[in-house]
Amino acid sequence: MAGLLTIDDPDDPRLHDYTGLTDVELRRRREPAEGLFIAEGEKVIRRAGEAGYTMRSMLLSAKWVDTMRDVIDTAPAPVYVVDPALAEQVTGYHVHRGALASMQRKPLPTAAGLLTAARRVVVMESVNDHTNIGAIFRSAAALGMDAVLLSPDCADPLYRRSVKVSMGAVFSVPYARLDVWPAGLREVREAGFGLLALTPDERAEPLDAVAPHRMDRVALMLGAEGSGLSRRALEASDTWVRIPMSHGVDSLNVGAAAAVAFYAVTAGRPPA
Amino acid sequence: MAGLLTIDDPDDPRLHDYTGLTDVELRRRREPAEGLFIAEGEKVIRRAGEAGYTMRSMLLSAKWVDTMRDVIDTAPAPVYVVDPALAEQVTGYHVHRGALASMQRKPLPTAAGLLTAARRVVVMESVNDHTNIGAIFRSAAALGMDAVLLSPDCADPLYRRSVKVSMGAVFSVPYARLDVWPAGLREVREAGFGLLALTPDERAEPLDAVAPHRMDRVALMLGAEGSGLSRRALEASDTWVRIPMSHGVDSLNVGAAAAVAFYAVTAGRPPA
Repeated sequence: MAGLLTIDDPDDPRLHDYTGLTDVELRRRREPAEGLFIAEGEKVIRRAGEAGYTMRSMLLSAKWVDTMRDVIDTAPAPVYVVDPALAEQVTGYHVHRGALASMQRKPLPTAAGLLTAARRVVVMESVNDHTNIGAIFRSAAALGMDAVLLSPDCADPLYRRSVKVSMGAVFSVPYARLDVWPAGLREVREAGFGLLALTPDERAEPLDAVAPHRMDRVALMLGAEGSGLSRRALEASDTWVRIPMSHGVDSLNVGAAAAVAFYAVTAGRPPA
Repeated sequence: MAGLLTIDDPDDPRLHDYTGLTDVELRRRREPAEGLFIAEGEKVIRRAGEAGYTMRSMLLSAKWVDTMRDVIDTAPAPVYVVDPALAEQVTGYHVHRGALASMQRKPLPTAAGLLTAARRVVVMESVNDHTNIGAIFRSAAALGMDAVLLSPDCADPLYRRSVKVSMGAVFSVPYARLDVWPAGLREVREAGFGLLALTPDERAEPLDAVAPHRMDRVALMLGAEGSGLSRRALEASDTWVRIPMSHGVDSLNVGAAAAVAFYAVTAGRPPA
């Protein structure tokens, strides 16, 4: 361990990683630029460590020291013990989960690297809501998707809210960004994947009729809540698939639709 | 139409249906007792009308009169036009969806009645979160479940938040309450349904191995987020089923799990 340090000055530069956590725009710029992300709460901090992320520092109130003792003892990082009021002053909110850790980002794998090993891939276009991206990662991990590819304008899976909603699943499923969109999909197809575009369009084929769980390699493309996949993305796909709707309902929410589609492409398949 | 009435006194007794809408405990008691529920926003108000619910009254600000003109002209109910500030004073919040309607509840069907016509039934135990129950109804409707049965302690599907999250799906899928729990499940079994209990328990059979879409009549039992089905409910079921988990994830959120299970029991089945 690098030691337990009590800090009582909110302007202490060692707290820099934790400043202004409620300012989403600021943090979206700063975190990737500074190579860090924030893990919040005992469970998520532990999962980040288990997934091989290096801790830069941890910030907690005194009453959490015992709970986090084993993490403190093994992490080669300074641990800042602060008063809850000071934590709130620095971060901008009441840290009711008690502990925050600043973790070092790892270089992302390339899409090509992921595509070699994977057989079931999620491709997200313009999913820029942190809650949705977190929920989709949780379902993708739980339901056995092997990897995630993101269009350039998707939200950051390592943003604090995404990590929390995913319950750490963003650490379990490897992901990469496609640099050009939708041209980058060509690389996916060339790696042997069938590109299935999920859409409510009635011209699409029912998901169960396509029987995607029997396909060797599937890339399932998802768009954002409301707007769905763009026309360009739909045109770049191989097959349009839809989840049949009943009772006059026009759509599922994106989280439910993603979960259903992941199940449909993985059900009955032995784990990779 | 019964007329457009401008009201400028927040204590006007005609506004009684709309008072204290943010007081969840108060509204939970009042609404069933007074035989009403609140539909919020243009889309949900229209869907409630289409589903055959009678309007008691509508409350809106002047700028929504044109949008709701056809509803106003056909509804046999008074329409109260109020200033947004007065609406906020009465309801307790800023009504940004512009229009609220107080609708008359209808008598619920009996479980026996629903079970005669249905082949795919959701049975919820202790789902007492309004957001979750709304989300589950939306998926149940979209994915072709025929009816919903609720344990006595489930939340009210007609509570404002449930209705809104369901996007009106609570009007499309008929539901009933079981008076005794879990003894009421006997009636479901006697109506010819296989009782499948959804659980993460590893002794449960994988959902796809059970092939519930091939069963004639399926009652799918779901518990609340976190706690899941009670031991008593599990014991009262016929078969435990689980959604296989990957990547070390222990569970899906209840909305995602419900959507996957509904898909699994309905996929490939022609609509009833």
